[in-house]
Amino acid sequence: MIKTGIVGATGYTGAELVRILLNHPQVKITSLTAKIEKGQPFSKIFPHFKGVFDVQCEVFENVESIAKKVDLVFLAVPHTVALKFVPEFLAKGIKVIDLSADYRFDSAEIYEEWYGTKHTHSELLKKKVYGLPELYRDKIKKADLIANPGCYPTSVILGASPLVKMGLVSEVLVNSLSGVSGAGRTADLSLIFPEIEGNLKAYKVASHRHQPEMAEQLSKAAGSNIKVIFVPHLVPISRGILTTMYIKLNKPTDRNKIWGKYQETYKNEPFVQLLPEGETPQIKMVRGTNKCQISVIVKDDLAIVITAIDNLIKGASGQAVQNMNLMYGWDETEGLLYIPVYP
Amino acid sequence: MIKTGIVGATGYTGAELVRILLNHPQVKITSLTAKIEKGQPFSKIFPHFKGVFDVQCEVFENVESIAKKVDLVFLAVPHTVALKFVPEFLAKGIKVIDLSADYRFDSAEIYEEWYGTKHTHSELLKKKVYGLPELYRDKIKKADLIANPGCYPTSVILGASPLVKMGLVSEVLVNSLSGVSGAGRTADLSLIFPEIEGNLKAYKVASHRHQPEMAEQLSKAAGSNIKVIFVPHLVPISRGILTTMYIKLNKPTDRNKIWGKYQETYKNEPFVQLLPEGETPQIKMVRGTNKCQISVIVKDDLAIVITAIDNLIKGASGQAVQNMNLMYGWDETEGLLYIPVYP
Amino acid sequence: MIKTGIVGATGYTGAELVRILLNHPQVKITSLTAKIEKGQPFSKIFPHFKGVFDVQCEVFENVESIAKKVDLVFLAVPHTVALKFVPEFLAKGIKVIDLSADYRFDSAEIYEEWYGTKHTHSELLKKKVYGLPELYRDKIKKADLIANPGCYPTSVILGASPLVKMGLVSEVLVNSLSGVSGAGRTADLSLIFPEIEGNLKAYKVASHRHQPEMAEQLSKAAGSNIKVIFVPHLVPISRGILTTMYIKLNKPTDRNKIWGKYQETYKNEPFVQLLPEGETPQIKMVRGTNKCQISVIVKDDLAIVITAIDNLIKGASGQAVQNMNLMYGWDETEGLLYIPVYP
Amino acid sequence: MIKTGIVGATGYTGAELVRILLNHPQVKITSLTAKIEKGQPFSKIFPHFKGVFDVQCEVFENVESIAKKVDLVFLAVPHTVALKFVPEFLAKGIKVIDLSADYRFDSAEIYEEWYGTKHTHSELLKKKVYGLPELYRDKIKKADLIANPGCYPTSVILGASPLVKMGLVSEVLVNSLSGVSGAGRTADLSLIFPEIEGNLKAYKVASHRHQPEMAEQLSKAAGSNIKVIFVPHLVPISRGILTTMYIKLNKPTDRNKIWGKYQETYKNEPFVQLLPEGETPQIKMVRGTNKCQISVIVKDDLAIVITAIDNLIKGASGQAVQNMNLMYGWDETEGLLYIPVYP
Repeated sequence: MIKTGIVGATGYTGAELVRILLNHPQVKITSLTAKIEKGQPFSKIFPHFKGVFDVQCEVFENVESIAKKVDLVFLAVPHTVALKFVPEFLAKGIKVIDLSADYRFDSAEIYEEWYGTKHTHSELLKKKVYGLPELYRDKIKKADLIANPGCYPTSVILGASPLVKMGLVSEVLVNSLSGVSGAGRTADLSLIFPEIEGNLKAYKVASHRHQPEMAEQLSKAAGSNIKVIFVPHLVPISRGILTTMYIKLNKPTDRNKIWGKYQETYKNEPFVQLLPEGETPQIKMVRGTNKCQISVIVKDDLAIVITAIDNLIKGASGQAVQNMNLMYGWDETEGLLYIPVYP
Repeated sequence: MIKTGIVGATGYTGAELVRILLNHPQVKITSLTAKIEKGQPFSKIFPHFKGVFDVQCEVFENVESIAKKVDLVFLAVPHTVALKFVPEFLAKGIKVIDLSADYRFDSAEIYEEWYGTKHTHSELLKKKVYGLPELYRDKIKKADLIANPGCYPTSVILGASPLVKMGLVSEVLVNSLSGVSGAGRTADLSLIFPEIEGNLKAYKVASHRHQPEMAEQLSKAAGSNIKVIFVPHLVPISRGILTTMYIKLNKPTDRNKIWGKYQETYKNEPFVQLLPEGETPQIKMVRGTNKCQISVIVKDDLAIVITAIDNLIKGASGQAVQNMNLMYGWDETEGLLYIPVYP
Repeated sequence: MIKTGIVGATGYTGAELVRILLNHPQVKITSLTAKIEKGQPFSKIFPHFKGVFDVQCEVFENVESIAKKVDLVFLAVPHTVALKFVPEFLAKGIKVIDLSADYRFDSAEIYEEWYGTKHTHSELLKKKVYGLPELYRDKIKKADLIANPGCYPTSVILGASPLVKMGLVSEVLVNSLSGVSGAGRTADLSLIFPEIEGNLKAYKVASHRHQPEMAEQLSKAAGSNIKVIFVPHLVPISRGILTTMYIKLNKPTDRNKIWGKYQETYKNEPFVQLLPEGETPQIKMVRGTNKCQISVIVKDDLAIVITAIDNLIKGASGQAVQNMNLMYGWDETEGLLYIPVYP
Repeated sequence: MIKTGIVGATGYTGAELVRILLNHPQVKITSLTAKIEKGQPFSKIFPHFKGVFDVQCEVFENVESIAKKVDLVFLAVPHTVALKFVPEFLAKGIKVIDLSADYRFDSAEIYEEWYGTKHTHSELLKKKVYGLPELYRDKIKKADLIANPGCYPTSVILGASPLVKMGLVSEVLVNSLSGVSGAGRTADLSLIFPEIEGNLKAYKVASHRHQPEMAEQLSKAAGSNIKVIFVPHLVPISRGILTTMYIKLNKPTDRNKIWGKYQETYKNEPFVQLLPEGETPQIKMVRGTNKCQISVIVKDDLAIVITAIDNLIKGASGQAVQNMNLMYGWDETEGLLYIPVYP
């Protein structure tokens, strides 16, 4: 039984972390903090926890007061906020799973270019492990600092990495559709129901911060430079990301050969679900779960790879718990086996 | 051709007023103001007007600067803001259609009790006309100041007034379902898509400010005191109000007798649509129109009256234009004949 | 470990039963049948079970072939279909939880009047127990035949029964809002997305078959005749029922007195959640759970009782499992403790 | 004033045709037929026309009985049904606007390959004009037979044709999102609300029948072979198509040069709205209108073109009326100038 803390517990990913950890037999939540007014019971902010988890959410004061109470901390804070918390927690011997983008990149330059902030602790970028278990399982097991992947990058890297590893690819065109919870629990005029219902739009075309994250990871997987163009779209669902990738192959390749690579790559993965020809991923099949569905269609020299995840689970809090399970040597699926509530 | 102004043009009712007035052959919009930062083109705030209506929305400065440009002004401002604008416009000879609640009540006391604000111009409460054409058509024709009805009250008064006029009723229990645009174009955390989709809830149970407005109007219609209990609910649609009323009759009454009263009352009304037995109102049949659908079911001594309106049209901006048409002696339906865009 | 069967496994309630039973430590699903074409894997019909529950759904042949395999059977079939299955299963010593309406009434006459079918086994109506644990827990523990309550009646009876037991009530006016899954997994033109999105409507006003079920149960609870008028509405959500009841009291009564009765009634109930003044039930707080939220507002001689349930869980399959737990002496909450997936 | 008929009036495109024609000053609807049971009033099938258009919809009998009553006929029937109607109407001197796919292709072979049906009147394929006014305005003015474009192809061809005409392109990768009305007014289990809400999925990946239609038209525009890969997705909105295209340029090209081509191409087009850099098309800006919004982003040798249309208007019935306006020499925008109902 370990003691865990959540910093930034009042966002959607924070709430999902709580829900998942409450179902986890090996952990206790011993610290729950956020930038809030004093004295807000957690189940007042999130009434769906009423009667199940009626603790107080505390005002965040400093790292020290939390570090005393926990073995591991989840940082569910906006980027830049995690920058200085991470080394402070590590210095006190606390393991850190950082859901922000602050330690995701190997390259401080890329971070600084896309996030517009000086990276004050770039020495930790080498120490951190990018928390995508399907790619970095062994390193995660020994890590003290996990940079939990972005939601869009998770949907892209899981879908494209087997292919780029085959050496057939130099560019990935990414079309993603995201539910509104991806924008966070934020009082923003553009997110209110009448603005979203019945609407569809692309945003930050080829300029979203997750684009360089995809590119860095796919390039590492390929062992060569992979260019990524990423076009995210906002669609009227609450949860989920559906990603459709258009990937040129440097020569026409038989689908069986490619599919064989996917099957081999993912044959023992508990959370990756490969779909046979004729089926395509659907949000409702992964919603509320830590799964990633993947299908691959090949037309001559073009591969079309489609993936679906729940942005708040495999795209954030579920993956964070999967990483924790690995760090502590527990069953990787502990606390993470859900069947979708359907319809 | 008259000149009209809209004060508070950047809310949903303001935008709908613009849309309707642009389709109106007798008016020009000569003033468009709101509490905004300087220099925001209207079609930047509301891109659906791009290419159709690319004027500037002006920063509201004072009544004088608007009064110079208009014959009639629509006030689409929050309650209390209209309180002092109204007499200022009237003093300059400008006709006023006030979409706020500030002049709706006959009784300053009730206003003050429910809106928590001293009514500084109660002498105008007698002068104003409550802008429900189906009840006050003749007075509206001669009015200078229209208090445009609330959205919920419109759905209730049109549905219940024929019945209360029959002298059979002393209390009306109102259950209303409202689309989210009824809460205004407001950056409120409780209104963002993930909070609304898939959810239903009652709010301000028997304590909503529209309750006394319903009671005052139904009591006037009945010529006796009518008690109203009003329970509004928020549901995941953008536009529309569906109201179901439970009305005890002081004696069992034949449905035909009641229905005859409705048919007589509304036989020449262009915007009231009575539905035969077996059909009930639907939002999609009135959305985008100035219509009010009504059905009546009678079980012994209980009448169940159901109505549907578009909250932004018959519940606000369309009704305002209908009032303007009457004030100027134009065809009452001018600019207001729309067929719903279906599905 | 008992063996259970589901007859009619391809509807939404059937699928929810499977999901809940898969999470239940005391049972195995040993029979899964429906009226389907031969050879349809269950996870083809419901892909959200893929990889989790990949058994075959069998073509329903006869009671005998199922009875050999199970200790208890859930009937998730349309009304009238259960009529003759029930005695056949009972005759073979199989316990039955019938989710249809066929055995819900004490009175065969009422059933025959509202369902238009001769009740061929009315002798069993006395033997059956109406499966609402909060009212009939002790009887359920000893029952062989459970008539699982209707979804709307569950939301009504849990909300109104404490009040009618106080002897203050003779009539309950019910306004319910239901998600579309309540209409079943049916290819019906009126249920397709473009017809439902953005729409609201009442249907079967004061003529829905659940009305007499509510009346019978509330009358039994009161020990006197309670009249019920029920107006269901279809709203654009997938799951959930929100019920608002308007209940006249035969004398003005203090809210505290009434609330005390609710607190006493439900103080040990694991699935009833009473909300303090100022809070009202919300679908999102009960969706995916077996909970029923209840709030009560009193205005003089009128009580407004609001409830929320998940129609497929507390309104159907969850309640069925709760009944099973009682029948076998297990913890009543076994397999039923879920936190809503939010948002 | 011409007389028009609609064959297949009970689908969504048929209903939209009626709505648009009722707003059109130059036409009368003199025939309204469908494969229906006898005696169904049109406003019973589509209650939103109640009180506005209460004619009878007739049972379709034969071409002759319709031809007597009309000058022009709109065929809103499934593909293959129009195949033989078209020559019959033409033979009687009736102008035809065919909304089906039967006469869209120049090549009978492609039609036969993708629609699985022998083309029995391939001689008319040369005579017909593909009814996209922005490309074929002059021919449309003189045509007797219009093959009205598919909804997806409209969104693609308007977006990509200026670019392919520049000679920079050999392949267009198309990612489209469609509202559910695109699947027709059909009682299909996969289209009911609980299956669609909250879900996203791709379907008919690179195998949808609109793919060869896009390819044929873009190839004709380019004067060279253009390959199209098309991935449609179903998303939870009722109306609208958002298309995002990924188009490799055969050399890095300055955005200004490309944008200049778009501006020149569309400078006088009443229904094409080019969006400046930084803005992207949105369904809500075109819903209920005949508009097509277009934006173009260029990254080195990749152009990303995004378009939005209302699938039932610019993608079907509105475009049909635009074609009719051209055929009769009326103002091209007659009956087609709508402002979106927002939000």
